[in-house]
Amino acid sequence: MKSPAKSCVVYIVGSGPGNKDLLTIMGYKVLKKAEVLIYDYLIPNEIIDIAPSDCIKIPHQKGETAEQRQKKFEEAVLNYCKTKKVIVRLQIGDPFLFGRGDEEIKFLRKNKIKFRVIPGVTSAIGVPTYVGLPVTSRGISSSVTIINGHPLKEGEINWEALKNVGGTIVIMMGISNSEKISSELIKNGFDPETPVCVISNGTTKYQRVLLTDLINMPSEIKKNKISPPGIIIVGKVVKEFMT
Amino acid sequence: MKSPAKSCVVYIVGSGPGNKDLLTIMGYKVLKKAEVLIYDYLIPNEIIDIAPSDCIKIPHQKGETAEQRQKKFEEAVLNYCKTKKVIVRLQIGDPFLFGRGDEEIKFLRKNKIKFRVIPGVTSAIGVPTYVGLPVTSRGISSSVTIINGHPLKEGEINWEALKNVGGTIVIMMGISNSEKISSELIKNGFDPETPVCVISNGTTKYQRVLLTDLINMPSEIKKNKISPPGIIIVGKVVKEFMT
Repeated sequence: MKSPAKSCVVYIVGSGPGNKDLLTIMGYKVLKKAEVLIYDYLIPNEIIDIAPSDCIKIPHQKGETAEQRQKKFEEAVLNYCKTKKVIVRLQIGDPFLFGRGDEEIKFLRKNKIKFRVIPGVTSAIGVPTYVGLPVTSRGISSSVTIINGHPLKEGEINWEALKNVGGTIVIMMGISNSEKISSELIKNGFDPETPVCVISNGTTKYQRVLLTDLINMPSEIKKNKISPPGIIIVGKVVKEFMT
Repeated sequence: MKSPAKSCVVYIVGSGPGNKDLLTIMGYKVLKKAEVLIYDYLIPNEIIDIAPSDCIKIPHQKGETAEQRQKKFEEAVLNYCKTKKVIVRLQIGDPFLFGRGDEEIKFLRKNKIKFRVIPGVTSAIGVPTYVGLPVTSRGISSSVTIINGHPLKEGEINWEALKNVGGTIVIMMGISNSEKISSELIKNGFDPETPVCVISNGTTKYQRVLLTDLINMPSEIKKNKISPPGIIIVGKVVKEFMT
């Protein structure tokens, strides 16, 4: 087995929330010289198409488990790092906020493969910003806590402490789990009428924005046929800026 | 007084954390056509220079209060929206995460001036990502709470609840306030040896990274002459990924 090409670098790149023009210039430049591209299925074609036409493209598929994706990444890297110089792993949003980037760099470090991480606009902040919703605002919310709403293991989130922190809460990938999120928050002291903004496919042409409150969120999501991917923003800022 | 030009749009744009290439393509395109540019003093010249040479440039100055900056913004907008089409307000990071974007859009709404908000890579997530530090990681930290460490008013942050949430804490602009931050966190139950990463001037050529722990943070910041602007990341992820 040949050892990795000395000049091989794996770039872990955030694509931003979905809109092609919310990619960073740094991400764009790296994509332009990609020889191998491993990417999330959520990333729009118009971003993937920035890579050269002869680039080897390896998409993740909907429904693959985290383990399957990690394995696909590892195999692709080991396979191509001997002969290629620029391997790009493109993730939706920022690669390190509930992305898989953390597991991926552990593998790269273990195998002594050079890498660089290029931040992206995270959906958690960028998607509300894009619709004009500041997650923090003087006198209304002095902090924001970002949690992952999927799969949301039992005991992973201290909902009561979240309530006591008192700032805005952004729940990533929580649309399909909205009933549990709504009931946990209310059970732990949140006013059922706390304003909520649900944004699916934020920043893209498929973007949809739903304004509701905690108690009605699950039924409104259903009634309005809001489907993943999306984020949920809970807190007073929603009322202050969206109504 | 003439009414605003029908086609005048104020763009509230995030520059990203400081590295020119971490500006988004959307931000770049808008900057390229700016006729008036109002901008934070922290933004490097190489980003400001993207604007056309005949663009009217209005910098904020170090030491100006939030009120003075808001006034300067309002005066510039009112002054130029009658005759110009593209007014750009460029903020460091994302304009809506502890930026002034929220107050600015309130003014624009009140005055019926058209605006668009363009997200940027927030320093809170992008700066740790850039140095290879994921703020969340499976089994280690399932949430991140972002707070503003400056000026940090009494009672604004519920430190005890922050402790109970249990995830990573990112403190923005906290370097000059590190003694208070360290003592508040320890007083409220954080282990004095909780790992801490301080990053000043993240993503730029002046970037500096300090690894320490809660109890030693203030003295290490002093000893190593780490100066603002910067962020502080507190939590197990620091130990997991940075040592």
